[in-house]
Amino acid sequence: MSWEENIRRVVPYTPGEQPKDKNVIKLNTNENPYPPSEAAMEALRSIPADAFRKYPDPNVTELRDEIAKFHGTAPERVFVGVGSDDVIAMLFQACFASEKPILFPDVTYSFYEVWAELFKAPYETVPLKEDFTIDEEGFKRPNGGIIFPNPNAPTGILMGLDAVERIVRANPDSVVIVDEAYIDFGGESALPLIDRYGNLVVVRTFSKSRSMAGMRIGYCVGQEKLIGYLQAVKFSFNSYTMSVPAIKMGAAAVRDKEYFEDCCEKIISTRQYAAEEFSRLGFKQTDSRANFLFVRHPDIDAVELLTFLKSKGIYVRHFGAERIKDYLRVTVGTPEEMDGLFEAIKSFMGR
Amino acid sequence: MSWEENIRRVVPYTPGEQPKDKNVIKLNTNENPYPPSEAAMEALRSIPADAFRKYPDPNVTELRDEIAKFHGTAPERVFVGVGSDDVIAMLFQACFASEKPILFPDVTYSFYEVWAELFKAPYETVPLKEDFTIDEEGFKRPNGGIIFPNPNAPTGILMGLDAVERIVRANPDSVVIVDEAYIDFGGESALPLIDRYGNLVVVRTFSKSRSMAGMRIGYCVGQEKLIGYLQAVKFSFNSYTMSVPAIKMGAAAVRDKEYFEDCCEKIISTRQYAAEEFSRLGFKQTDSRANFLFVRHPDIDAVELLTFLKSKGIYVRHFGAERIKDYLRVTVGTPEEMDGLFEAIKSFMGR
Repeated sequence: MSWEENIRRVVPYTPGEQPKDKNVIKLNTNENPYPPSEAAMEALRSIPADAFRKYPDPNVTELRDEIAKFHGTAPERVFVGVGSDDVIAMLFQACFASEKPILFPDVTYSFYEVWAELFKAPYETVPLKEDFTIDEEGFKRPNGGIIFPNPNAPTGILMGLDAVERIVRANPDSVVIVDEAYIDFGGESALPLIDRYGNLVVVRTFSKSRSMAGMRIGYCVGQEKLIGYLQAVKFSFNSYTMSVPAIKMGAAAVRDKEYFEDCCEKIISTRQYAAEEFSRLGFKQTDSRANFLFVRHPDIDAVELLTFLKSKGIYVRHFGAERIKDYLRVTVGTPEEMDGLFEAIKSFMGR
Repeated sequence: MSWEENIRRVVPYTPGEQPKDKNVIKLNTNENPYPPSEAAMEALRSIPADAFRKYPDPNVTELRDEIAKFHGTAPERVFVGVGSDDVIAMLFQACFASEKPILFPDVTYSFYEVWAELFKAPYETVPLKEDFTIDEEGFKRPNGGIIFPNPNAPTGILMGLDAVERIVRANPDSVVIVDEAYIDFGGESALPLIDRYGNLVVVRTFSKSRSMAGMRIGYCVGQEKLIGYLQAVKFSFNSYTMSVPAIKMGAAAVRDKEYFEDCCEKIISTRQYAAEEFSRLGFKQTDSRANFLFVRHPDIDAVELLTFLKSKGIYVRHFGAERIKDYLRVTVGTPEEMDGLFEAIKSFMGR
């Protein structure tokens, strides 16, 4: 034998392409086209050198306080991690320690399956309905935990708050995680339900609506008891996950509510414009409430269009899964970036 | 039943106290008394706002390249994480997937036991010898993986490179992790052994010798194959763990070799001075090669002294474990901080 027999083998996730060339139109990873708040940048630049030699506050107090204030809740109800991926991975480890299967939609964020495999948790997928909406009834059977994004990815389709509540209420014996990575672009949040349901956790990220994918901040909100369990798992792992700049810059970004709302409004408005333009060009699409559109054209092969766009320096995303292989996911960029995209699509269609 | 039955219960680790008061002498968490390199601060402050809206480079290329250059090795041999705690937790998950017990010393970094428990890996501790040196022979029996710090914590005692090599050579069927968090303060690194042993991994941190505990950067070096397995586990977890500032500031810190060496030399020299002063005051101590001293006084109760010092605004560390309960671990600060400490100790002894 050899040491390699003790190695855990996994199939690594392939993240969306990050082209080095600066002159591309990058609509493939749902990043925000606008930079972070200037107040956040100023907070970063004014951290004194001496703050770095010490360990950061393991309780992430300043950032948790600001997030709690923003949502009108208590800091004890907020857990912060290194991006929402870290938060969700921690939730899987802390809250899904059951022999029964975890449930999530068949078409959804691809990491849920990866984490279930990694933590050796059994899981089953619940197929989306024909129209790509989440099948509420599919989440009303014995399970060890539930997770779904709202709006769902990569469809962008929003589930109504009443349906979310019915799922949470039907599962008092499981933790239900609602991944609201894209909720700030026009969806109704499940946060108000937390007062009434101890088994609900709502996950958020700074990577989309707060323009801070590069800083790695995510968080979740739940009742004190559940968040307490999560903090315990985090502290048993790595007490100091949040760096000094993440805490300082994150807190400043949350304080700058006006800039945040302004960016979200601009993106919603560009999404509206882009959706209409896609329709004019004969594309079919879901009713996306996220910062991306999910489109297909009856007469165009998705991979051919993807390849053509890439040759023009425009990056969009394609997923190979059978049910969605005719679709492309297109991040909402600036109006100028969308115009560049549509110009390229028209030239492809005119060939 | 309730959702709480699916919750994983853990006993959280208690990190060293982080007093809020600025006027304390903080010698309890082995932080560096000097700030990070001015070049690192400049690199941080000059990151453009636009860099934050995008996801960071998941391969951490710039930082891995600099670390590789610093050690005269290839970037493919370097894995970077959110502090060495993150790196070691990842190593436990990736490399210790065995039914046989993991081995580590009985007196050592307290997180090893916590991770073994968390990842449900069997483990056994190898008692230090009477003189607190690591018992080399104890690591030559069937096991699923080996980890020890060198110098060991909290003793500060260094194991010779020949002994490290004998342990690595005796265990071709296990991964051997040498945690060199404190090696820059005067120890001989196991890095040169990596060319010859595919089962060896050497872990380092930016938190001690590079004055960047607040930035959360750790790394490890091993042969390409082992590092490849580790990268796969990381990518299956969370592709984007390293933030833009961590990458930029970390790379600049590594480039500033002169400042780094200068800080290490100052700390080694202060350690020498402090060790002599402790001896003069009648303390017994280990031969520490780290940035802390491990001391006990035959006539003084450790907890009494700890409490007295705290009342004077001076923080040192005590561990409750039976074998070391008479000792205090004292971080090497600036010469002025050490003078403040000795003045307080003298006043305690003179009472």
